[in-house]
Amino acid sequence: MKAEIIAIGSELLLGQIVDTNSSFIAKRLAEHGIELIRTSTVGDDLSLIEEVLREATQRSSIVITTGGLGPTEDDLTREGVAKVFQLPLVFQPHLMEEIEAMFKRGGFRMTENNRKQAFIPEGAIPIENPKGTAPGFILEYPKGSIISIPGVPPEMEYLMGNAVIPYLRKRFDIKHQVIQYKVLRACGLGESAIGQQIKDLMKQSRNPSVGTLASIGDIRIRITAKAENPEEGSTLIRNM
Amino acid sequence: MKAEIIAIGSELLLGQIVDTNSSFIAKRLAEHGIELIRTSTVGDDLSLIEEVLREATQRSSIVITTGGLGPTEDDLTREGVAKVFQLPLVFQPHLMEEIEAMFKRGGFRMTENNRKQAFIPEGAIPIENPKGTAPGFILEYPKGSIISIPGVPPEMEYLMGNAVIPYLRKRFDIKHQVIQYKVLRACGLGESAIGQQIKDLMKQSRNPSVGTLASIGDIRIRITAKAENPEEGSTLIRNM
Repeated sequence: MKAEIIAIGSELLLGQIVDTNSSFIAKRLAEHGIELIRTSTVGDDLSLIEEVLREATQRSSIVITTGGLGPTEDDLTREGVAKVFQLPLVFQPHLMEEIEAMFKRGGFRMTENNRKQAFIPEGAIPIENPKGTAPGFILEYPKGSIISIPGVPPEMEYLMGNAVIPYLRKRFDIKHQVIQYKVLRACGLGESAIGQQIKDLMKQSRNPSVGTLASIGDIRIRITAKAENPEEGSTLIRNM
Repeated sequence: MKAEIIAIGSELLLGQIVDTNSSFIAKRLAEHGIELIRTSTVGDDLSLIEEVLREATQRSSIVITTGGLGPTEDDLTREGVAKVFQLPLVFQPHLMEEIEAMFKRGGFRMTENNRKQAFIPEGAIPIENPKGTAPGFILEYPKGSIISIPGVPPEMEYLMGNAVIPYLRKRFDIKHQVIQYKVLRACGLGESAIGQQIKDLMKQSRNPSVGTLASIGDIRIRITAKAENPEEGSTLIRNM
């Protein structure tokens, strides 16, 4: 089961902010044994959003997008998903009520452009967002599911834990796993000398997997083993 | 002139590290008025590297890759670029000498797998790397250039400033610019209320461009204006 992450927002392509959302989501997917094959970032441009969404949904069964769900002119994720699947955007009165309630609680006046956030592609499953005004949504397509959630990090993190992972578990029958890993830090030898010695281990099968990670003055070797968790409950991650 | 960045490394897709390289490069490109249309991340898998490189070089004139240039089994960027353009990898004796000298200076024994780093695709321009053992390279293709540099951040930063940007300026006749920007921080109104009021400004032309950026409790409006710099020298970035 292949997955991709797409981060949407011109501020990312201008280098104004670092995309920490993708690595957060990547880690959650890895914990559930879901193979992430690619992440992409595009700006707030409808045709470029459409292009990246079309490619990803053709390649992968799970596509998670962050960003572009806000109320302003440059928020175009809904439109992009709708265009790829040639679906109209449909107004969801209950999402509008949630948004209105959110403004009321915050003591803010709700402007007209917030209505935009209550539209989702026809047939999509709404994801209510108690942490902000932008709801997310899940659209199922023959090969898989595209899941769009906001890019504001605390909202994204909340929705990943409370909506996206529970949905993926149900939809894709994801096995709970035990992941055991050990990170060895090496000194005295460079990456190439270490790589030479553990060449066979790095080449061998995927479980356990062995990889090196070099930064200046610090070489790490990571050994990761995965097994199905026979007990009920969530994935266990053990640092040995 | 469209550009893309591709970060290569399984550690990124496992969420073990955050990709800060792409935003560093994105910022440098923005300063030089180069339009970045997409960034991607793929793991250490030759066929997936090949696929993303092929797509990017078909779409864009400037493709910058980071990572996958080290000496170990899982470093596959050279092979990926060579496969896309159906070129052999060619041994460069002077790069080998540089690598040997680097080991000698550091007092390390050079292992055999370091030879791998002295190979670059036939016809590519080598980028010497005085900050590490992995040289980079530039391969020109009819539509543009692919530039591969290491992913270790201090090496990447050094090579961006000392090799990549100077090359891009020469090859693509990049104009020096004056970029003036102002970030307004707003409070008391949410993103939607602000977006409603500056809707026309956000919709209008690209110069100056106006965008909003929301995080919890903090809405920023960024106004960016660009002009050609009539004076010689580098791009000037002024925060008004």
